[in-house]
Amino acid sequence: MPQGFHGDLAQVGGTLVTMAKAARETMRQASQALLAADHTSAQQVIERGAEINVLFRLVEDRVYDLVGRRKLGPDELPATMTAVQVAADLERMSELAVHVARSSLRRHPAPAVAPELTGLFTTMSEVADRLAEKMVDVLADHDAELAAGLDQDDDAMDQLHRRLFAVMLSPDWPLGVEAAVDGALLGRFYERYADHAVNVANRVVELTRADNGIRSSN
Amino acid sequence: MPQGFHGDLAQVGGTLVTMAKAARETMRQASQALLAADHTSAQQVIERGAEINVLFRLVEDRVYDLVGRRKLGPDELPATMTAVQVAADLERMSELAVHVARSSLRRHPAPAVAPELTGLFTTMSEVADRLAEKMVDVLADHDAELAAGLDQDDDAMDQLHRRLFAVMLSPDWPLGVEAAVDGALLGRFYERYADHAVNVANRVVELTRADNGIRSSN
Repeated sequence: MPQGFHGDLAQVGGTLVTMAKAARETMRQASQALLAADHTSAQQVIERGAEINVLFRLVEDRVYDLVGRRKLGPDELPATMTAVQVAADLERMSELAVHVARSSLRRHPAPAVAPELTGLFTTMSEVADRLAEKMVDVLADHDAELAAGLDQDDDAMDQLHRRLFAVMLSPDWPLGVEAAVDGALLGRFYERYADHAVNVANRVVELTRADNGIRSSN
Repeated sequence: MPQGFHGDLAQVGGTLVTMAKAARETMRQASQALLAADHTSAQQVIERGAEINVLFRLVEDRVYDLVGRRKLGPDELPATMTAVQVAADLERMSELAVHVARSSLRRHPAPAVAPELTGLFTTMSEVADRLAEKMVDVLADHDAELAAGLDQDDDAMDQLHRRLFAVMLSPDWPLGVEAAVDGALLGRFYERYADHAVNVANRVVELTRADNGIRSSN
């Protein structure tokens, strides 16, 4: 019953797109919570993180069900495996958004981002959102060309991350240790978020290539 | 050919134990590099990290091969899925060891750990090693009781992590921002390493329960 299988797999794909949009939205909201010291947004991110975890389990269950139903064809197997890996990346992205939200709550009502770093974190959050947006498109359209666009944004994120450390570690850093420690961890959360978005896009591209028969047998 | 399947799965299990031992050994060596500012050890960790990545691909390929060969039985499917997830956790653990080694290289020949934090990081590295040791045993013996032992060590790691931040953020902190930023990131690497070790043990336990038919159908 190949049609049933492909229908089910398409359904899993639909859930992944929902998860990806949610992983984007949670980080948008976490950035808003962080940059505006917005307590309500931070709380909502934590709740949504739990919802995304439920979606993750749903994808896993469905894929287990699919794989267990019958012997999969060579074109079906990578798609199901990729689905689980993508779901794991997306779940991790939403966990990182939850970390950002928690950092914001920990310092509330003071902002967790020092005024000296607001500009950098605003840009990092914009780059993260651009990466997540492209990731959603790649996942929805399986478009390998779109995926290439993520690498540039990822490079931009790495540069911002390095600049963040240069600012905090310069002798001119006017603030104390706490602001720098918060900055270091937050920087890492955004950088890891970007890495996972790139992972998702790369996995989809790899899969698209496999579907086109370009991938070699090992 | 169930015997062939179980033989192949056992082989995958063997590779996972090899990976787990390597993930333990890389963090031991990374801790040695960190605490003794040992340049050679740090370089070796980076090389071994690349080797573990090769093992990860090997596990993935073998599992894909297994799953693609025929329809899997209900007892075979979770084991193969768990294998890929465990391999991903182990790979991430070795990546975290590589991060620790890189932190050590970045400050070389100065130590990346401030003298004020040496005691804490020595204990963190010991707890990490104990977690990894137990994880290897759980993976080799599929022993659910052993797995419970990891939770205590994980709690100990969380406490050490909190104490680390309390030390760095106290008004008495005698060192500058750089030492605190290094400390914050290193603390996070150890804490994440511990989380992944616990993940591996939990996945094995879940699988063992499923094998015993305790796991419900959803």
